[in-house]
Amino acid sequence: MEKFVRNAWYVAAWSKEIGNTLFSRRILDEPVVMYRTSDGTPVAMLDRCPHKLTPLSLGRIIDDRVQCGYHGLEFDCSGKCVYVPGQNRIPPQAKARTFPLVERYNALWIWMGDPELADPDRIIEVQRYDEPGWAVIDGQYQYHRTSYLNIAENLVDPAHTTYVHRQTIGNPAAGEVPVTVEVSKDERGNDYVLAYRWTNNAEPPPIDQKLGSFSGLTDRCQYYYYYLPCVSRVDVVTMEAGQEQSEENKDKGLRAFSYKMLTPETENRTHFFWMHVRNFRINEDVSTLIEGMNATFQEDNEISSAVQREQEATGDLQYAWLGIDAAPSRVRKMLEKMASPE
Amino acid sequence: MEKFVRNAWYVAAWSKEIGNTLFSRRILDEPVVMYRTSDGTPVAMLDRCPHKLTPLSLGRIIDDRVQCGYHGLEFDCSGKCVYVPGQNRIPPQAKARTFPLVERYNALWIWMGDPELADPDRIIEVQRYDEPGWAVIDGQYQYHRTSYLNIAENLVDPAHTTYVHRQTIGNPAAGEVPVTVEVSKDERGNDYVLAYRWTNNAEPPPIDQKLGSFSGLTDRCQYYYYYLPCVSRVDVVTMEAGQEQSEENKDKGLRAFSYKMLTPETENRTHFFWMHVRNFRINEDVSTLIEGMNATFQEDNEISSAVQREQEATGDLQYAWLGIDAAPSRVRKMLEKMASPE
Amino acid sequence: MEKFVRNAWYVAAWSKEIGNTLFSRRILDEPVVMYRTSDGTPVAMLDRCPHKLTPLSLGRIIDDRVQCGYHGLEFDCSGKCVYVPGQNRIPPQAKARTFPLVERYNALWIWMGDPELADPDRIIEVQRYDEPGWAVIDGQYQYHRTSYLNIAENLVDPAHTTYVHRQTIGNPAAGEVPVTVEVSKDERGNDYVLAYRWTNNAEPPPIDQKLGSFSGLTDRCQYYYYYLPCVSRVDVVTMEAGQEQSEENKDKGLRAFSYKMLTPETENRTHFFWMHVRNFRINEDVSTLIEGMNATFQEDNEISSAVQREQEATGDLQYAWLGIDAAPSRVRKMLEKMASPE
Repeated sequence: MEKFVRNAWYVAAWSKEIGNTLFSRRILDEPVVMYRTSDGTPVAMLDRCPHKLTPLSLGRIIDDRVQCGYHGLEFDCSGKCVYVPGQNRIPPQAKARTFPLVERYNALWIWMGDPELADPDRIIEVQRYDEPGWAVIDGQYQYHRTSYLNIAENLVDPAHTTYVHRQTIGNPAAGEVPVTVEVSKDERGNDYVLAYRWTNNAEPPPIDQKLGSFSGLTDRCQYYYYYLPCVSRVDVVTMEAGQEQSEENKDKGLRAFSYKMLTPETENRTHFFWMHVRNFRINEDVSTLIEGMNATFQEDNEISSAVQREQEATGDLQYAWLGIDAAPSRVRKMLEKMASPE
Repeated sequence: MEKFVRNAWYVAAWSKEIGNTLFSRRILDEPVVMYRTSDGTPVAMLDRCPHKLTPLSLGRIIDDRVQCGYHGLEFDCSGKCVYVPGQNRIPPQAKARTFPLVERYNALWIWMGDPELADPDRIIEVQRYDEPGWAVIDGQYQYHRTSYLNIAENLVDPAHTTYVHRQTIGNPAAGEVPVTVEVSKDERGNDYVLAYRWTNNAEPPPIDQKLGSFSGLTDRCQYYYYYLPCVSRVDVVTMEAGQEQSEENKDKGLRAFSYKMLTPETENRTHFFWMHVRNFRINEDVSTLIEGMNATFQEDNEISSAVQREQEATGDLQYAWLGIDAAPSRVRKMLEKMASPE
Repeated sequence: MEKFVRNAWYVAAWSKEIGNTLFSRRILDEPVVMYRTSDGTPVAMLDRCPHKLTPLSLGRIIDDRVQCGYHGLEFDCSGKCVYVPGQNRIPPQAKARTFPLVERYNALWIWMGDPELADPDRIIEVQRYDEPGWAVIDGQYQYHRTSYLNIAENLVDPAHTTYVHRQTIGNPAAGEVPVTVEVSKDERGNDYVLAYRWTNNAEPPPIDQKLGSFSGLTDRCQYYYYYLPCVSRVDVVTMEAGQEQSEENKDKGLRAFSYKMLTPETENRTHFFWMHVRNFRINEDVSTLIEGMNATFQEDNEISSAVQREQEATGDLQYAWLGIDAAPSRVRKMLEKMASPE
């Protein structure tokens, strides 16, 4: 059974990570080397010389070409071998595999599947990005010792917040609020699963009390979108209780869009990139906010990595099924089907 | 072939290790979480939530119940799920497995097999425990990187003492003294193998010379009992040479009962608990004695772990058979038969 | 498929490494313990007691015999068990396997195959060793995390020098000079592969410029001999350009013989011993030269270990075939055939 959905855009790196040196990262269990040509164009290539399998990242960049560090073969940014020391004939097998790579939202998006199908228009939209009144945090990365399937489940599972994040963002009241689940397709053709819930007429959680200036009780919503196979968008709003819950009113409350982009390193390890768009504390130093979010996602990582270890030890996934599993199970099943269509 | 004898009492922990926090230890290759309820009753549960396999030890104790750290399911000390956040129905699969756990001799004894067969009367007796004129060392633990079968062999093998413990308790003279082996059953129905030998009319070993006040030569005996599957009792006496070797005279010499309780962590790693009952240096500080014994058992661990590595590399156990192998082979064969009765 | 060529002499250790204590090293995936008897004779024995598999290296030497550290069995330097504590009968299985071991060139050469075939005359000759006008560096060791086959390929592959050793001995001009390959047998009956090339009328590389006093351009040759299965000899000469390239004239230039002796630890890890014979800087301190050569071989190790990891990940060896692969492929094919003759 194929483990990965290959025909999809994954974040390979943040823009700032890739410059004029060779950078290697394992993606969908393949080694990928990335660099920029002198005009700034980012390039992604299989990090394995077609001669003797040497990682190309051990070589160097010469005139926008990658020179293998073992025997000096040179590959241009299309992967074509343009120089073999000591001989004129370039054997046809001496071809480095390259991957479509698109720069958007300060990130480099890679397509590991059939290049013919790589349509940049299918890259997910980051909402309110660079719009006035909104601020962006990006460039954030964590390494999670768990499968991206476990993380995907977690990301459409509001029920875990009360327990896993008890000491950070957890809201004891939320544990009892049921979640509504929907499955649909966005205007770009990407399937998504949505789980959402409203917690109305409640005390705002400690963090919102700090950030907003709420005179009384609040309505709070969490919309957990999971765009298959690898992007989570959480739309969180805290607004004064009792107003109409329209998009316009939401934008007047505290609102944030939290994006996580999951890129499987291997079947059981995941690159976890995150970014965040908000309408509060626009011009402030948010290093504490970033620290707090990183701490929160590390709480998920700790739980999810422990679950991964038990899954590997037992070969099992789950014994009892609960109502809160609706969205997570949908996401897992859809992802497994996307990976092995028949 | 089943690797472990499941229907038996194993030491899971020292009493002092378990309190009002969750404590996890792997036993017979299963993760076990332990804690005490508010009245001090110790509880042992499979450390794996029946919902999504999360280790329960990552959660917390709430009102004597274990709350899973992922989704907040709560299990009482019988393993029954008594609360699922967000729904009233408790699915029947949401049941945590518990294990019989008995507190005795400052230790917690666990039964990993059929709970119907868990009879506390079969827990081994620790002799002279809490009797006047005798003192106890307990609470000692080591982690041995070898199978409990290798340790069991070692514990009925007096012949190794001269060589492995040359620099601690080794007695060069003992190397030549033959060992008598017996197999029998104690009054509690536990099978045991006994190997023993007397070294008569010999200089006492350095450590006994320090502890006793022997005017001349001594008789020294070592009785190595192994109660299947997991408890070793060594009865060691040094007495002035020439007396009748009765129980009464033994108690007048230097006498110690050394207990080791082996609990397989996995097939090839073992929790090594030990305690010691003696009739000398009753009210003294014995930290040096404890250090010495720990050093001695680490010598066994070093040899036995090296043997384990060679066994794994070769798939073999032994090539040549010697007279001194009588008791060790008996123990291994009986243990293998106990694990796979047919 | 047999992985190793067993009927061959491998360097097991440098003479200086083996004395009157037990020294253990894994060779062709077998544990070997070495020591010297009181008259200095070196002994090599399987490091595994035939009783219970205990590594003999955990024991000690008593009167030129190895005493097992577990039960005190003693083996003489022929591997014969001469003492079993507590019994007179020595069982026939209590026999330690020994290996032929010959001391030559300050090294101990071991024969892991059929002892009947172990002819010391087949040990490779080290040229100019101990001759006047020549100096020797020996006793050098590195541990390479790659198969000896990958190292063997590297050692008959002059084309890598320009790239792997760019910052040490690399000569940019050499990259374009074709290599001639020959296969033959030396006078001792050892098969060898030879790859060589001359770089004539070129600027000497930086290191030669320091060492020699060349007034102008130089001719430089590199002869890469690989004596199957495990010895590389590189004969490197830099001489003033324009002379007859005779042995006599070579000896008047800067000349060095560089020997590497590869001993597989396991299928994918290699003990890398090296020595060096030269006709320059005879009486000087050469610690910088030694450091430089060790740095150079570590560059090979880095590349070759990375190749090893890719080979293990893919199960492949090579995709494109180049002219420079002639000698490396010959060596690999011959070695694989030597290991599995049919």
